[in-house]
Amino acid sequence: MLKAVDELRRELGEEAVSTDPDDLEYHGYSEISTSNTDERPIAVVRPQSTEQVSAIAKICTKYKVPMVPFGAKSSMEGNYSSPFSGICIDMCEMDKIVEFHPQDMDIVVQAGVNWTVLNEEIKDTGLFLPPDPGPTALIGGMVATNCSGTNAMRYGAMKDYVVNLTVVLADGTIIKTRHRPRKTSAGYNLNSLFTGSEGTLGIITQATLKLAVLPTNLSAAAAAFGSVHQAVAAASTMIRSGLPLAALELMDDQQMRSINKSGGTAGRMWEENPTLFLKFSGTENSTKDSVKAAQAICRTHGARTFDGVYGEKEIDSLWSARKRALFAAIAEQPKGAMVWGTDVAVPISRMADLIEESRAKATGLDLWNSVLGHVGDGNFHQAMFYLPNDAIGKNKVADCVDTMVKRAIEMEGTVSGEHGIGIGKKDCLLKELGPSTIGVMKALKDALDPHWLLNPGKVFDE
Amino acid sequence: MLKAVDELRRELGEEAVSTDPDDLEYHGYSEISTSNTDERPIAVVRPQSTEQVSAIAKICTKYKVPMVPFGAKSSMEGNYSSPFSGICIDMCEMDKIVEFHPQDMDIVVQAGVNWTVLNEEIKDTGLFLPPDPGPTALIGGMVATNCSGTNAMRYGAMKDYVVNLTVVLADGTIIKTRHRPRKTSAGYNLNSLFTGSEGTLGIITQATLKLAVLPTNLSAAAAAFGSVHQAVAAASTMIRSGLPLAALELMDDQQMRSINKSGGTAGRMWEENPTLFLKFSGTENSTKDSVKAAQAICRTHGARTFDGVYGEKEIDSLWSARKRALFAAIAEQPKGAMVWGTDVAVPISRMADLIEESRAKATGLDLWNSVLGHVGDGNFHQAMFYLPNDAIGKNKVADCVDTMVKRAIEMEGTVSGEHGIGIGKKDCLLKELGPSTIGVMKALKDALDPHWLLNPGKVFDE
Repeated sequence: MLKAVDELRRELGEEAVSTDPDDLEYHGYSEISTSNTDERPIAVVRPQSTEQVSAIAKICTKYKVPMVPFGAKSSMEGNYSSPFSGICIDMCEMDKIVEFHPQDMDIVVQAGVNWTVLNEEIKDTGLFLPPDPGPTALIGGMVATNCSGTNAMRYGAMKDYVVNLTVVLADGTIIKTRHRPRKTSAGYNLNSLFTGSEGTLGIITQATLKLAVLPTNLSAAAAAFGSVHQAVAAASTMIRSGLPLAALELMDDQQMRSINKSGGTAGRMWEENPTLFLKFSGTENSTKDSVKAAQAICRTHGARTFDGVYGEKEIDSLWSARKRALFAAIAEQPKGAMVWGTDVAVPISRMADLIEESRAKATGLDLWNSVLGHVGDGNFHQAMFYLPNDAIGKNKVADCVDTMVKRAIEMEGTVSGEHGIGIGKKDCLLKELGPSTIGVMKALKDALDPHWLLNPGKVFDE
Repeated sequence: MLKAVDELRRELGEEAVSTDPDDLEYHGYSEISTSNTDERPIAVVRPQSTEQVSAIAKICTKYKVPMVPFGAKSSMEGNYSSPFSGICIDMCEMDKIVEFHPQDMDIVVQAGVNWTVLNEEIKDTGLFLPPDPGPTALIGGMVATNCSGTNAMRYGAMKDYVVNLTVVLADGTIIKTRHRPRKTSAGYNLNSLFTGSEGTLGIITQATLKLAVLPTNLSAAAAAFGSVHQAVAAASTMIRSGLPLAALELMDDQQMRSINKSGGTAGRMWEENPTLFLKFSGTENSTKDSVKAAQAICRTHGARTFDGVYGEKEIDSLWSARKRALFAAIAEQPKGAMVWGTDVAVPISRMADLIEESRAKATGLDLWNSVLGHVGDGNFHQAMFYLPNDAIGKNKVADCVDTMVKRAIEMEGTVSGEHGIGIGKKDCLLKELGPSTIGVMKALKDALDPHWLLNPGKVFDE
């Protein structure tokens, strides 16, 4: 490995290669990860071009050194950690918008571009990139994880926005998956193969992304229910009725309590009940019609309160409760505690059962826990706290996650709706898909990365 | 091969295996294909279950016999022909709806289910499967080709509707790609890898498909323009303005002439100019607002006529022109002639240029030709006629297709937006993507089908 580091320095220059202990620690450990390992990268490299990434891959392949692509460090399942050490490839300096084609509604960006910066840059053209994960996330990691967020219900996940990718393969070969058509049936879908592969099949250095039209008219609503079942049933009815939902989120009673504890929102205190947060887009008239229709449906399903709002300021104020959910929850964290945030997705008909089961189990074990759901996708997160040195407490949390994942599989769901597998869920993935299907994935891995040098120890083991 | 046929008869019974010459001819030749070959399958097998398909694959692998999956015979690029003979696997008897989950908005079907039958079966639940290729198409072929149609602009292509696939691999292994989550980030995206792989990586026997909510309110419009450029510019402006377009189709002047020649629609004769056909969905008010907004945009871009309609009957009548486009064009076919129907997709900013260039070239060569475009996706079809025994005429058509494809690539487009590669476009695909990217696709093929027995001679050569 040291020889590889020397050669990287010669190839890319001293400044591009760091072995500073703090830098290695920063790139190898995270407080929000479910699965840290003891190993750290031996060096962090900051390439500035696809060609430099290719040079890095050639050197790593020559010395059989692991390569771990690194973005914003916002993933949750140890996706970017370095369990076999190796070279951490930090994409932060590849942060350029390369081309913008407003007429074609696409944009070409390097992997290190941040999505909120991108959207700020282009907002005057009336276009935006819909997937909305954590605000620090970078495009490369977003593609590698197939992330999504609150916009996924209406706009889909990251995979739905990839027009083409520039990818560096393990041996340093540079490929471009496609030109710039919005639709194609020509050859295998390499966009979707690399999207969500967590850097284990190739290193994404550049992407052309579809953009969507920013909605000009929005309305929003919040409705509190007596139970999660009622809230999900109302959500389901709204979807089936064809309402133009731009977002459909669930916060449970604990989440609402956290919001109130943190001072409420803009002076407002909330009902501490499972609450749906809705957004509608359309014409000025239709957004108003939608709120009325949603109100009728929510009332039918036993909503205790229903607030419909119009106008940017009112909508932002209402949605600030949803926006602040994570921070409000973290504010309840005992000193020194860590958060275990995980996600599953199940068919929507089973979602309420699984949320209530999961909450009951964690509460029964005296664990602080809360649930946040992207209802339209049957996807939700449960957050729990544990103290790193309290083995019993940590085991309790692990047991809850284990049971939730097992039940999600029994309900025909998936062990991760948007966070990916990383290190944390390798066993879960095997349980979800079984050895034959994982065997196909491993055959693909063998074909593209025969020495398993790309982000080894993630998704599945050799 | 004969030994394999004998063993198939023993395994599946005499009735499941046909060597009737008419049957072989039917499965090996098509008048609408751009690329027939002289070879025919040695036998046609009609399995009734995934297990039987697995048994067929095991026998074919044992004797190293090619396997060619066969659906409705509606593909255009020789996707199901048998250039190396072998066993044709006709999925027509696997035509059962296995499970329907209206609450989860998904349906589990065998590969031989027809999409129009499926939609008729479930329409009372207010749900439908959006992709709308040729009306005879079967689900297995639709997934294998990643087909789309007029609904793609609003609803996406077939790949966007695959929740999971049951696939028989070359060696007979049966895998299921996923359970039933609507969203997932767990492991590699095998759904998208098999979707569009044209039966070269595995045989799709069953699929779980997402369904969408049938729109309750529609409006429609048709607008005639002085040029294709004007029409596409209007289309582009409508998309960017965020209008809730359910469909956005272009028929050129020749298409409109064909419609008139065939007697017009419901007594109506049309302007023989490039014409946009639009559909809007939403609330009752918003569909009316959308027509008004579209009219203003079309006028700005020089529309000569604009007809907006509401009500099911009026909409059906207006859209019958678009629906009858193919039949009206084929009615112009000289006796004994064949149609060469092909498709490309380019960034929308280049679409009008490419359509006008392609029309001018074909017209300059005295070829009857017409264009039909799915404008929102930058995807269009050019149809031309040729007499099979007229080598010069056929070469002219081939030259036009060649030039169109070459120009599409130069414009950063793709050589097929929805028909796939089959035999007809293997060279084009290589030109589009280059040897490194095709090399990755071949590595995947090698990994999953080491003896190249699955639909050999399609997509690319060994």
